[in-house]
Amino acid sequence: MNIEHQEQMQKVLSALKSMTVKNFFFVGCGGSKAALGPGDYFMDRELNLPSKVYTSNEFIHLNPKTLGENSVVITRSHSGTTPETVDATKFARDKGAMTIAISMDMASPLCREAEYVVHYNYKDGSDAVDGDTGMFWALIFNIINALSPNEKYDRLLNQLSNLENLFEVNKKNTYDAAFDFGKRNKREKLIYTMASGAYFDQAYSFTSCLLMEMLWIHSNAIHSGEYFHGPFEVTDYDVPFLVIVGDGPSRPLDDRALEFAQKFSDKIEVVDVQKLDYLKVDADLRAYFGPAIIGAVLRQYADGLAEHTGHPLSVRRYMWKMEY
Amino acid sequence: MNIEHQEQMQKVLSALKSMTVKNFFFVGCGGSKAALGPGDYFMDRELNLPSKVYTSNEFIHLNPKTLGENSVVITRSHSGTTPETVDATKFARDKGAMTIAISMDMASPLCREAEYVVHYNYKDGSDAVDGDTGMFWALIFNIINALSPNEKYDRLLNQLSNLENLFEVNKKNTYDAAFDFGKRNKREKLIYTMASGAYFDQAYSFTSCLLMEMLWIHSNAIHSGEYFHGPFEVTDYDVPFLVIVGDGPSRPLDDRALEFAQKFSDKIEVVDVQKLDYLKVDADLRAYFGPAIIGAVLRQYADGLAEHTGHPLSVRRYMWKMEY
Repeated sequence: MNIEHQEQMQKVLSALKSMTVKNFFFVGCGGSKAALGPGDYFMDRELNLPSKVYTSNEFIHLNPKTLGENSVVITRSHSGTTPETVDATKFARDKGAMTIAISMDMASPLCREAEYVVHYNYKDGSDAVDGDTGMFWALIFNIINALSPNEKYDRLLNQLSNLENLFEVNKKNTYDAAFDFGKRNKREKLIYTMASGAYFDQAYSFTSCLLMEMLWIHSNAIHSGEYFHGPFEVTDYDVPFLVIVGDGPSRPLDDRALEFAQKFSDKIEVVDVQKLDYLKVDADLRAYFGPAIIGAVLRQYADGLAEHTGHPLSVRRYMWKMEY
Repeated sequence: MNIEHQEQMQKVLSALKSMTVKNFFFVGCGGSKAALGPGDYFMDRELNLPSKVYTSNEFIHLNPKTLGENSVVITRSHSGTTPETVDATKFARDKGAMTIAISMDMASPLCREAEYVVHYNYKDGSDAVDGDTGMFWALIFNIINALSPNEKYDRLLNQLSNLENLFEVNKKNTYDAAFDFGKRNKREKLIYTMASGAYFDQAYSFTSCLLMEMLWIHSNAIHSGEYFHGPFEVTDYDVPFLVIVGDGPSRPLDDRALEFAQKFSDKIEVVDVQKLDYLKVDADLRAYFGPAIIGAVLRQYADGLAEHTGHPLSVRRYMWKMEY
């Protein structure tokens, strides 16, 4: 981690030590909200403190009663300009909460509104440990380790230095499958996604930002645990699903949903996190690393669709083109 | 409320008074999880205690660290037989939490596992105050009133006696619109839903249980606050959306999403909660009653689709027909 990033992290941790934390709020929109999801998931499992995720505008209008001076509000926006998230940060700070903004741009409105900032590098060729996933994982597990110290978090934080290689190797290993997925699915107007646990937000992000936003393909991110309670009735031989089978505690949910889906649909694509190459990551830390790696792998499945549909991921019809 | 129901409620409230409540968990699957959602929403706004919703199997596998002797876990299953929810109740009770099960069948496995039970009547011609919505609203606002007393909750609980008439009048007022929606949309293979606040779970339920499960129509429940952060790019002249415009604090989110959607799609159906007839409900209590009434209204939109597609809501291809 570079020195600027280390200093930001130290400021956050010092501030945390000087307060009594009562709860955590994760607040963002779309892909940024989804990117915060694993933070909520891991805190839920590891910390004896409540946490919750909100889409920014709902957070403001709902106005949670537990939000106050003992709250930590972590907001996130890639550009740092998302108006709802800037407003949510101001709203939380006005309530006396400790605010931490995550963005690639320190000069952005979001970072100006927040008391603490966590910057990440973006497409500048620097090591992945300083990128969006590396910095977010560092933030979350530094916080968890500060509030509930455990040697496994020390190891986890050290082994974030593997991220760059983990991304590279696993992207290479899944490239062919991802592009073949694009070829086989290029005529599809609708592709469902499915996942659970810390991976659910990856499915949500793939559905909302990659399929719907960037590729104009209809979709819905179905929680594997919810599949049998309604959604599974749309399963048919010609209905495509991209199923993430995670390697965390909820893997049995994914396995069960996958087994059923494969029985009745001929168009099931499986992304099995257990088949990733974890390189030098300790075996007991894999469930923390899987959700960090899978995003880079999944991106290639969207690249595959873009390649074969001739619809670049950069094309929009509304976003950035008009006021809304 | 009938005597059996009153006694159940009193037992819950007495037990609550004898413990120090630290947090609430709402746990269920599919439509039952969605039905619990407004409880989480209202507690979030009104109580200075954390609450969170989980799908049952995720709840067990995630194993939230804050779950313990000071927790209240509210589980729900219509039949009381949903295996994941029965297991979740047992899991929570083993952790020392206070468990409250909601079901129409007191002899069900769910109700046998839970320490406390809240029964609701189902299709027996009794007053709606004893039905699923009436009993759940009574439970939630009795709990909120016990922990944070306010005269408005007393009025709210009293005015639940209006539910029967509210259902009847508002179903009647929206019947034609709902059946016309069915006629206009009978050829659609995909219909999105959209909502926010306490209404989001109504959209989720309509999407998962009515459109996908009962009608085999593809769908996705989009949060109005998330619409502009990805999903809105699928909007086009021929893409249908059913938009619930709520009457609570997040109505501005719905208004904004609706305005955009109507500009680019010719197939927008609006269900405006402000146009409901609230009869004798006090003006300051409407935001509590809207989410209680809208489910009965929305059901008619599914009835309209069933009528015009000739696909009865009772038809399934997998559910109840095989092991899974």
